[in-house]
Amino acid sequence: MSTSTRCAACRFLRRRCRQDCVLAPYFPPTNPQRFANVHKVFGASKITELLKQLPVHLRYDAAECMSIEAASRARDPVYGCVGVISQLQQHIIDVQSELVKIKSELAVHNAQQQLQLENGERASEQQQDELLWLGSTQHDPLNLDQLLIQANDYQKSHF
Amino acid sequence: MSTSTRCAACRFLRRRCRQDCVLAPYFPPTNPQRFANVHKVFGASKITELLKQLPVHLRYDAAECMSIEAASRARDPVYGCVGVISQLQQHIIDVQSELVKIKSELAVHNAQQQLQLENGERASEQQQDELLWLGSTQHDPLNLDQLLIQANDYQKSHF
Repeated sequence: MSTSTRCAACRFLRRRCRQDCVLAPYFPPTNPQRFANVHKVFGASKITELLKQLPVHLRYDAAECMSIEAASRARDPVYGCVGVISQLQQHIIDVQSELVKIKSELAVHNAQQQLQLENGERASEQQQDELLWLGSTQHDPLNLDQLLIQANDYQKSHF
Repeated sequence: MSTSTRCAACRFLRRRCRQDCVLAPYFPPTNPQRFANVHKVFGASKITELLKQLPVHLRYDAAECMSIEAASRARDPVYGCVGVISQLQQHIIDVQSELVKIKSELAVHNAQQQLQLENGERASEQQQDELLWLGSTQHDPLNLDQLLIQANDYQKSHF
């Protein structure tokens, strides 16, 4: 690799970029800030060490994650990524609390609904009983006529 | 500070621990692994640089967070803290999905309950109407007696 196509790391470190440069595939010259951030937090030797000890197919992800960690530390020099983790953990606690609240609300609704159903059934049974009772004691006009005829017959036979 | 009470960093780096050692307050000799982890990921000079640029009251938190970051990277050399962030983000997505599901379930229950209440009111009104209608057409034994008396009177007057 010629000097004109040095990777961002070698350009930053003002050194020749060798063909076997471990950093070159992950720190292209098009994004110099990416390496600058990572270098500020981890240093070139630590990045190189870490990437060298990993299988080639995992190096891109590792470089990406170190870059994200470094960007987090640049944004928040005290807490860095751990600050993000704390915020996410708090967010999970909030969402889980809301979930517990909604679940208990749902449980109350279910219990109320069950109670209403049972009350509805009891009321329906009671009203059915009332209707049956009324049915047994009520007399429609036809039966009244029948009774009048019966009364008439009774009058005729007795008076 | 004498050599026998060197901080974990100075002991690790085999150097004399000076009274103004920036690392000493945050890397006590009782926990050598803490510095070993941090050193492996960031290196002594980066840790010192980072702590020096912070106000004293924030240095403990920063050292703690670097220690957590280093421990994450030791556990997961590819993804480190970013792997934890991804897991937490996925967990949030899962909990939020469950929340949306439970909320929609609650909305369905509320709608059903409202419908049941309305149906209950309609049914109650209908049954009340039926009872009123039955009340207007039914005749209890007293009224039947009355009718029989009326029929009797009618018979007496006409036959």
